[in-house]
Order: sequence, then C-alpha cells, then structure tokens
Amino acid sequence: MKLTECITAVKPVGAALEGRAKHKIDFKTKPLGSLGVIEDIALKMALIQDTLDPVIRGKRMFVFAGDHGVTAEGVSAFPAAVTPQMVMNFLAGGAAINVFCRHGGIDIGIVDMGVNYDFGGVKGLIDKKVANGTKNFFRENAMSEAEAVKALENGIAVFTEAYAASPFGIVGVGDMGIGNTSAASAIIAAITGASAADVTGRGTGVDDTGLSHKTDIIAQALTARKPDAKNALDVLMKVGGFEIAGIAGCVLAAAAHRVPVVLDGIISTAGGLIAHTFAPSVSDYLFSAHRSVEKGQALALKRMGVSPLLDFNLRLGEGTGAALAIPVIDAACAIMREMASFESAGVTNNE
Amino acid sequence: MKLTECITAVKPVGAALEGRAKHKIDFKTKPLGSLGVIEDIALKMALIQDTLDPVIRGKRMFVFAGDHGVTAEGVSAFPAAVTPQMVMNFLAGGAAINVFCRHGGIDIGIVDMGVNYDFGGVKGLIDKKVANGTKNFFRENAMSEAEAVKALENGIAVFTEAYAASPFGIVGVGDMGIGNTSAASAIIAAITGASAADVTGRGTGVDDTGLSHKTDIIAQALTARKPDAKNALDVLMKVGGFEIAGIAGCVLAAAAHRVPVVLDGIISTAGGLIAHTFAPSVSDYLFSAHRSVEKGQALALKRMGVSPLLDFNLRLGEGTGAALAIPVIDAACAIMREMASFESAGVTNNE
Repeated sequence: MKLTECITAVKPVGAALEGRAKHKIDFKTKPLGSLGVIEDIALKMALIQDTLDPVIRGKRMFVFAGDHGVTAEGVSAFPAAVTPQMVMNFLAGGAAINVFCRHGGIDIGIVDMGVNYDFGGVKGLIDKKVANGTKNFFRENAMSEAEAVKALENGIAVFTEAYAASPFGIVGVGDMGIGNTSAASAIIAAITGASAADVTGRGTGVDDTGLSHKTDIIAQALTARKPDAKNALDVLMKVGGFEIAGIAGCVLAAAAHRVPVVLDGIISTAGGLIAHTFAPSVSDYLFSAHRSVEKGQALALKRMGVSPLLDFNLRLGEGTGAALAIPVIDAACAIMREMASFESAGVTNNE
Repeated sequence: MKLTECITAVKPVGAALEGRAKHKIDFKTKPLGSLGVIEDIALKMALIQDTLDPVIRGKRMFVFAGDHGVTAEGVSAFPAAVTPQMVMNFLAGGAAINVFCRHGGIDIGIVDMGVNYDFGGVKGLIDKKVANGTKNFFRENAMSEAEAVKALENGIAVFTEAYAASPFGIVGVGDMGIGNTSAASAIIAAITGASAADVTGRGTGVDDTGLSHKTDIIAQALTARKPDAKNALDVLMKVGGFEIAGIAGCVLAAAAHRVPVVLDGIISTAGGLIAHTFAPSVSDYLFSAHRSVEKGQALALKRMGVSPLLDFNLRLGEGTGAALAIPVIDAACAIMREMASFESAGVTNNE
C-alpha cells in the first residue's frame, strides 16, 4: 500500500454508536462512572470496532529497530553496537519485551528498519531495512525524501503483510535504536513548536552534563535543519529515524484497517505524532500505554489528544509499556461484553 | 487459627537476598532502573518468596461483604438492599470483579461476613456471617469486642481454609457493603489522626450536600466513640465493619503464610491498616493495586509505606483494581525469572 493511499484510508470512527455504547456502560451494575479509565477504554474500543461488544481477537507487537547517525555526537549512554545486539536478544526471546509478550499472549515481530549491521538473513527477523542507520542529523538531513517514503511504506507493509497472513485485533508498537530519544525529541519539538529543552530527557541514562550536551545538539540541529512543522515527511527526513518512520507507517496502516494501536514511550509516540500529522484521525485508534519518564512524550500526546494509561516510571522502550497495557484494554472490552446490567442482575439503581 | 497466634506468625521478610536480587535486576539487558515500578515489584516478590526466581502459582480473590448500620444516617447514594443484590450478582458471575477475575485467571470467592440478608445456604457463598450488619456507629459501637475478634478470625479462616484446600501464590482482597466508605474513612481517621474532612469522599456518588452530611456524621461519631488509635481492635469494634474485619484477618493470614496480598480501594486499604496496626510487618507482603478516588486511601497507604500501582480513577471496590494489578505483579515475576542478563545475551553494558 502506498503512503498516500494509506493516509486517505484513515477515517474517523463513527459517532452513531456513541449514545448506545455510553448507555450500555452506564447501566452496568456499578455506580455511574466508577470504572473510570476502564469505561473510557471500553467506549473507545466500541467505537473503533463499531459494536457494543468489542472483542480483541489476536494481539500483536512489532519492535522496530534502527540506528542513528547522531550517536556520533555522543548523545547516548550506550554504544550504537547495542542496537544489533538487542535485536539478537529479541530474536532469542531474552529481552523484557519478549517476557511481557509471552506473559500477555501477544505475538511479537522484530523489524530491521535500518540497523547498522548485516544480520545475514537471520531467522525470524522481518527485513525492512532502508539503510545502515540514518545520517547524523546534527550535520545533515537524517535521510533522503525517498528513504523517508520508503521507510513509511515499509512500516505500512509490516502491518499489512502480517494482517493478511493472520488478522489481529490490536497492535503495539515498540522501538530499539541507540540514539533514538534524540531523534524522537527533535521530531516532537519540530511538530509541537516546543524548545529542545522542553522535550529532551536522559534516554538510556546520560548524566547532567550529557543531558545538557544532548539538548544543545538537538537545539542546534533544529536551527540548522529547519523542519517544517506542518510537513511530516519533511520532519522525518530531516531529524527522524528509520524505526520511527516504520512505527508511523504501522500506525497509519492500523488506523486505515480500523485496528487499535498502542503507543509505548517517547519513540513510538513520536512515530504516532508523525502519523497524526499526516492523518489527524489516527487519534481515534490510538492508545498511549504509559507515561514515559521522557518529558517530550507528554507534549506529543497532548497534541494527539491521548492520555497515558499506566505510570510505572518506565524508560526502556521496546514496546514494554504497550505490552503491559494491552491486557488492560482487553479487560475493558470484556467489561463491555460480559458485565451484567442493573436490569439483568436485578440490582437496584440509585435513581 | 486464633487472632493472637496469627499476629505472632507475621514476620518481616528477610533481607539476606536483597543484594543478590538487586544485582540480578540491575544486570538484565536494560538501562539501569529503566523498568521502574516493575523492578520494585520484582524485588518485593523475590524477598517475599525468598528466591531470585519468584513465581505466582495460583491467583485468588476474596470479596468480603457486609452491611452497615450507619446507612440509617443517609450516608450512601445507594440503598442497603444493594449489598445482598450484588452478592447474588457476584455468585452469578455478572459483576465487574467476576469479569476481571475471569480475564486475569484469578479464582474468586465471595464471603458473607455480615450481610443483612438470609441467603439460605445459596451455592458458592462462603458463609462467615458474624451478624446481620453492624450497629449504627453514629449512635453506638459498630460491634462488640467478641464480634470484632470473631470477624477477624473468620477472615483468617477464609484464607487458611482456601489455602489448605488448594495453595495459591497471591491473594487480592475486595469488598461489597453499602455504607462501607463511611466505616473505612472513620477507621483511617481514627488510626492516622486525620480529620473526617481529610478522609471522607463521595463513596458510590453522594452530591456536595451528601458529602458534607457524611463528613459530619463521621466527625461526630469519632468524637462520640473515641476509638484508640493504637488499638486496632478498639477501632474496629467502634467504627468498623464486618467485611473490613474479614479483610484485615485475611491480610494477617496471608502475611503469616508469606503470601503477597493485593489491596484494592479505600475499604480494603482500611482493612489492611487494621492488620498493619496489629502487625506492622504486614507491609512487607502488601501491594496497593491502585490510587482510589477516595482520598482517605492515600493517608492509610502512607502510614503503611505502600504505593499504589495503577491510577484508573476507579471507585467501585469489589477488588476490581486488585484484579487488574495482579497480572502486572505476575509480569514482574516473569521478568525476574526469564529476562536475559547482559552477559547471557552478549549485550554490551554501558560501564
């Protein structure tokens, strides 16, 4: 599916069912509104699936990996070699995201969007490599326009190929890429108009000096590259990342297929923001798994009108927060389908 | 098991394993501390089970039900008849807690601690009834000292009988009882020394006038009954509830058996606080599932040194938050057992 075609296919959810869905929730055996956020999730899922009985059949997680030229500026606490090492860890089933996906009954796919390493056709890896890492966006554009389009369409293909092979009812999007909090922060600053200082955090764990340096690099890169806030493709090619583009493509494809998609931390939220800038209606299909320690995430979520579900002080990425949130969304759907009403249970309402 | 025997059997967790457990967490393939609260849970479970590989074998939920004489003062938005109606809803599997327990693989038990209704030996109900509801604590003590001891020991028996029949690795405690936020608020005020205004919320949904009236009733009752902050039995008999006593007994028994116990909202947290006042070491075995909308809960948790895991604006009780939190605790144990170390996965650490 071409990018333009996918963007056009993203439609807002219908509001026709909203009144009946709210009524169904309100007359379940509980004080009005007492299931809080669970009720919001149930309503959103009902509208996405256009049914009063939403159900998640099959859960998917994609971890998009890519390397970043900007690591040459010393913005990360870990060396770039860790990106391919962690991809191998994912394939071996040993990373946190593997543990959470097994635990939550979520099928996981690992995608090479642009890791600076030749995996030599290793078994299990979804090969969507665009290039061996981005260019250093402190000195030049991160990628060409053609590469940006290709990365987005590769992300779309990750979704559509998996969905065609075996449909699923929800998809989480995670990331791996040393240096990618710098790219995500730059994207969020570019699109929201926030300063580098407002969006930049410690990533995998730089100290105060490192944070100050990282913030400077991002601020100077934004001044030099001048990404156009209204043009997602321009932002992506100037300061983006291949894995972030893959996530954005996957989000667009999920929304186009009316499949809810769960963002994780700041990286996948930046991917979601790219998708949202292309097609604002993706918000109707988006869940934010958790409040990231990275402060830029909140600005991106505010722009998209989405609130985080969990708050566990996570800052690992990989999709770990999304994998923990998907069971909660599943539980909210079960409430919609299975919980009794005052009438059916013979319980007195307070009215 | 007698109350005094159970209290004596609660021992603090050993600290011998702490260093090795922390080391195991810190050398897993992730930036230091990046799994946030999940790491705290994993460590707590390791210490409770005294192993580097904690595992939850069998999950249990008990919903303790009881009625409250103080409803005569008009403190609740729902009529007292709803308590037995909801018990029947639990037994039929139609309440929110049933849905969440089915979803989370949690076995549920419904306990009549003191509902003002004759269930006539209905199938599936665990009969631990002490009396047909408490007395109105606005006018007299909620129960006698003998009833308070019996209710606590019945709560202990709920745990020990189920555990003897089929052991489990974690237990959630929920509540049902129209009027019980008034009792819970009074207990928390009595033990923490907070004012009635500081601990009283809207319960199932009283309006501003109702909240003001409810606060007055609790304030006057505390002045009249004079519960002794240091004497949990005195607090329980003067302003408590049978289901809250059952929860307190269950918490004590769980801690005595080194089984982690998950508190839900303000009611079960008040039960936990009673248990904590008897035996402060119960904190080592306690998890708080979620931040309740009821503000008194936070004061009780602070006293016990426990932080809530979820924040979903829940105010339903029944154990609903606990049922949503138990899978997260399970996932944290899986991290401890299954996640690779830098060494085993061949990933470069940043040191």
